Amino acid sequence: MNIQGKPHRTIGWSVDRSAVEFIDQAALPRTFSVLRATSLDQIALAISSMQVRGAPLIGVAAVYGLALAARADASDRALASAAAQLIETRPTAINLRWAVEWAQAKLAVVAVASRARRAEELASELADLECAIGKQIAEHGVKLIAEHHRRAPGRPVQVMTHCNAGWLATVDWGTALAPVYLAQQLKIPIHVWVSETRPRNQGLLTAFELREQAVPHTVLVDNAAGLLMQRGEIDLVIVGTDRTSAQGDVCNKIGTYLKALAAKANGVPFYAAVPSSSIDWKLADGVKGTPIEQRDEAEVRVVGGVELLPKASPVTNYGFDVTPASLVTGLITERGVCAASRAGLAELFPEHRA
Amino acid sequence: MNIQGKPHRTIGWSVDRSAVEFIDQAALPRTFSVLRATSLDQIALAISSMQVRGAPLIGVAAVYGLALAARADASDRALASAAAQLIETRPTAINLRWAVEWAQAKLAVVAVASRARRAEELASELADLECAIGKQIAEHGVKLIAEHHRRAPGRPVQVMTHCNAGWLATVDWGTALAPVYLAQQLKIPIHVWVSETRPRNQGLLTAFELREQAVPHTVLVDNAAGLLMQRGEIDLVIVGTDRTSAQGDVCNKIGTYLKALAAKANGVPFYAAVPSSSIDWKLADGVKGTPIEQRDEAEVRVVGGVELLPKASPVTNYGFDVTPASLVTGLITERGVCAASRAGLAELFPEHRA
Repeated sequence: MNIQGKPHRTIGWSVDRSAVEFIDQAALPRTFSVLRATSLDQIALAISSMQVRGAPLIGVAAVYGLALAARADASDRALASAAAQLIETRPTAINLRWAVEWAQAKLAVVAVASRARRAEELASELADLECAIGKQIAEHGVKLIAEHHRRAPGRPVQVMTHCNAGWLATVDWGTALAPVYLAQQLKIPIHVWVSETRPRNQGLLTAFELREQAVPHTVLVDNAAGLLMQRGEIDLVIVGTDRTSAQGDVCNKIGTYLKALAAKANGVPFYAAVPSSSIDWKLADGVKGTPIEQRDEAEVRVVGGVELLPKASPVTNYGFDVTPASLVTGLITERGVCAASRAGLAELFPEHRA
Repeated sequence: MNIQGKPHRTIGWSVDRSAVEFIDQAALPRTFSVLRATSLDQIALAISSMQVRGAPLIGVAAVYGLALAARADASDRALASAAAQLIETRPTAINLRWAVEWAQAKLAVVAVASRARRAEELASELADLECAIGKQIAEHGVKLIAEHHRRAPGRPVQVMTHCNAGWLATVDWGTALAPVYLAQQLKIPIHVWVSETRPRNQGLLTAFELREQAVPHTVLVDNAAGLLMQRGEIDLVIVGTDRTSAQGDVCNKIGTYLKALAAKANGVPFYAAVPSSSIDWKLADGVKGTPIEQRDEAEVRVVGGVELLPKASPVTNYGFDVTPASLVTGLITERGVCAASRAGLAELFPEHRA
């Protein structure tokens, strides 16, 4: 997608392949800058500090990190250690584990001497794959938007999202925003309601993306989502996911659950855009079983560099919550849209049928 | 209540009665300062800019403003104009209108020459009345907290609140926090979960109050309320109100509705502390009929003096939402706790029976 009219990806090899280059998302939207990493540790830090963020993207970034590790030492032992280090950076997003294990399995069958080169290719392959998956999610999801447009053609379709599940959260296209970008290409009038998404305000990344793509949008505080749905201002909600359980419970950025409750109470369809790499096929009950990352309390205390809350008041800072499948209208996957249930997922992914 | 160990009220006459003194709540919690007003316009600006805030307090402040107006001109026409100016400062909170009309009615029967003096007394009377009402709400509400303590005596009762409905929002005691303060005096172990309450972060005022009263508490982002309730961390929710309809729909700071939805979904009792001055007896359906104030978009764009969101992204900024009575377990009034319904309110306030 574009920044100042020029197409970008969020991550990739430098031209001479000496380093991984990635957009610094901790500096956005105020400052656009591209960082370089030449070691596993630098990638691990970029992921844990959220310079690189978004469930699909951190999976891709981890494979780039594994490739850098393989340059230093491609032995089974070194790669296993690197894989463990990468997986530990963010406990909730399952893509990370999926991507690392995918690359590990492919490297295991390659001679040690060839692994660094193969890992370099795998990172690029996974980046391309994520782009293709985003495009497929766009094509399935845009039908939902088109359906709302058909019913009320005289006005823009009103989509609400949460956090950032746009192209910045992936390599290109995005997940939740991919159908929005395709709708715009197809000239379906659309308007996106962007909740600021405390803490860390990733909604501001979403606003940045939408501005750069010239998609009409309005920013709201997270607290305002219920009122807007109660007033009939929202046609559908589309969010991303960090881990969706095998029965369709959707773990996503903290606050998603509140939006899903408001959507259900007001008859607003609520969709999650779910690349299959973010499905935890081994986990049935996502509400009970999803590990919820607790992050640095500074994310709550400090906004824009200003400490708003003194240390004398304790803080809690969970990064995610889980929306039970009963509140989810459907899952938009790369193979199509299905019900948020074991049966729904089994229709699209029969190879994972229990 | 105390600030640095010394008891304060939020508003009152200066010792020589030349001015109204009030705590500047826009500067809190970073800076504690007391401002002086000697004119109607200064009070009106203090209310609209939220230097003075909280539904009960702005009602009281308005009567102080009316008293300052009466010093300049106590004619019927001048007072009607002052009343209209004050009522317009904040459209949602009904206390404001109630308080102004209460004072106007009392002044109408007094000779013009005596009105300035009478208005001065009325402001002090209303301030005392609000304190007494806060204490009564404390006494009724603390029984709900004591009941949870009786059921699980080995641990603190876990109360969640939203925004600031503490003593800073009134003259002393508060509404939603009044039962909390009384519980602490009665040695009932208690812990308060404070949502930061974007925009304007009035949760930080709540944290400030609780720190100064040494009440254990933890601050969360608004988005985290659902997860905490889903995990069984919350025993009961108590919020304030800016206007409660005759059938028990509770208008309060934006985001209250989302907490009520989460409470209902997770079997957590949800109470509103409602001084009867905040009941709009003429309004039945609060969801449809409550005027919702839209405030300056800078409240969303700028946090701690830092502009987080550029002007190129539009913003919406509603100050309040309405929680339908069906989500409200009960209303804590100065006369007792009742069901959030016309019948429930009629039991306690038979004089308002339709």
